[in-house]
Amino acid sequence: MIGIIGGTGPQGRGLAYRLARAGVDVLIGSRDPERGIAAAEEVALLAGGGATVQGAGNAELPARADMLLVTVPYEGLEATLGPLADEVGDMVVMSAVNKLSFAGGPQALPVEAGSSAEEVARLLPAARVTTAFNNVSATHLRNTEHVFDEDVLVCGDDDEAVKRTVELASQVEGLRGVACGPLRLAFTIEAMTAVVISVNATHGVTAGLRITGL
Amino acid sequence: MIGIIGGTGPQGRGLAYRLARAGVDVLIGSRDPERGIAAAEEVALLAGGGATVQGAGNAELPARADMLLVTVPYEGLEATLGPLADEVGDMVVMSAVNKLSFAGGPQALPVEAGSSAEEVARLLPAARVTTAFNNVSATHLRNTEHVFDEDVLVCGDDDEAVKRTVELASQVEGLRGVACGPLRLAFTIEAMTAVVISVNATHGVTAGLRITGL
Repeated sequence: MIGIIGGTGPQGRGLAYRLARAGVDVLIGSRDPERGIAAAEEVALLAGGGATVQGAGNAELPARADMLLVTVPYEGLEATLGPLADEVGDMVVMSAVNKLSFAGGPQALPVEAGSSAEEVARLLPAARVTTAFNNVSATHLRNTEHVFDEDVLVCGDDDEAVKRTVELASQVEGLRGVACGPLRLAFTIEAMTAVVISVNATHGVTAGLRITGL
Repeated sequence: MIGIIGGTGPQGRGLAYRLARAGVDVLIGSRDPERGIAAAEEVALLAGGGATVQGAGNAELPARADMLLVTVPYEGLEATLGPLADEVGDMVVMSAVNKLSFAGGPQALPVEAGSSAEEVARLLPAARVTTAFNNVSATHLRNTEHVFDEDVLVCGDDDEAVKRTVELASQVEGLRGVACGPLRLAFTIEAMTAVVISVNATHGVTAGLRITGL
């Protein structure tokens, strides 16, 4: 069971749908448990069975899930994750968070901790944090017709956490997880989201990233 | 004719070889004209005819070349480019410069101007600066057997400069230039070189980047 913290936004719902479609059980978390449950019902209909899709309050996720995925906006990280630190303990926590600005075109904003993923690690000090799904478009995730052809760039400082993240990403049709190195590379991976969005705007396409030669 | 400023290093020689092999005339620049000429002779032998490969002092390049390509290490930019600003004028100047650290693994270092490319633009204020070839391995460039399968991410603020850079990159076998947006995305593209090097170290491969869906 993958617990998606802040999973009722576009990225969270999109990932819940794609994971459920791949047969992975998901638990969509929200500040408001009712909103989590409503999102789960919508995603379950879209995914059409095969996996369990449930909703809950964010606070329930650490106890009920095997791994956590954070899709909270950067600005909401402290308020959402701070109270969960003890419950989360040393769980594997995947961060899909990007701190971007769209003023004058997409661009990554500096993060005091180094990256959004390192901010997640600061707020959950015992957790084994990785990056995942940062560059995958929420629009494409939720578009049931979109066929993915891209990689999920994963970094992290705990080998087992990286391995489990890579395996999870690779379960989604058309995606492949690629271990890229330590967490200190997270900012670059997060910032590439701005480049991908810019490529989309420049060419009117739906771009993704692939690592070739692998 | 492409003038390669600081072209006697591994990246400069490698790009000179690949461009010459694609039929593009190159002029390899060095602080010491004799070193430029010696590098040109080596590259000409490797490329085996079809294009002109010449060497010269860096100062001669603006007058003799149609476009410039900068492959000077970041630390040498000011000393090398500063004296050339008037000569360069509004030429198209491609920057392949990355400011990286390898202490404790590859990582991009912060640049006061925002990126190495923006530092090039600061030193050559009238030039139309683009990024190009930042993520292409010098080792692969010089390996005559290596078959490329990757994109050259190009950004810049002058549309014609971006177009000419994209076209040049696409002339090299196995490479494709992709316009990615404005110059303020340059730091992310430069920093991706550290991620690519880290992927190589993690997997023992020769990785490249592709934009899919394009």
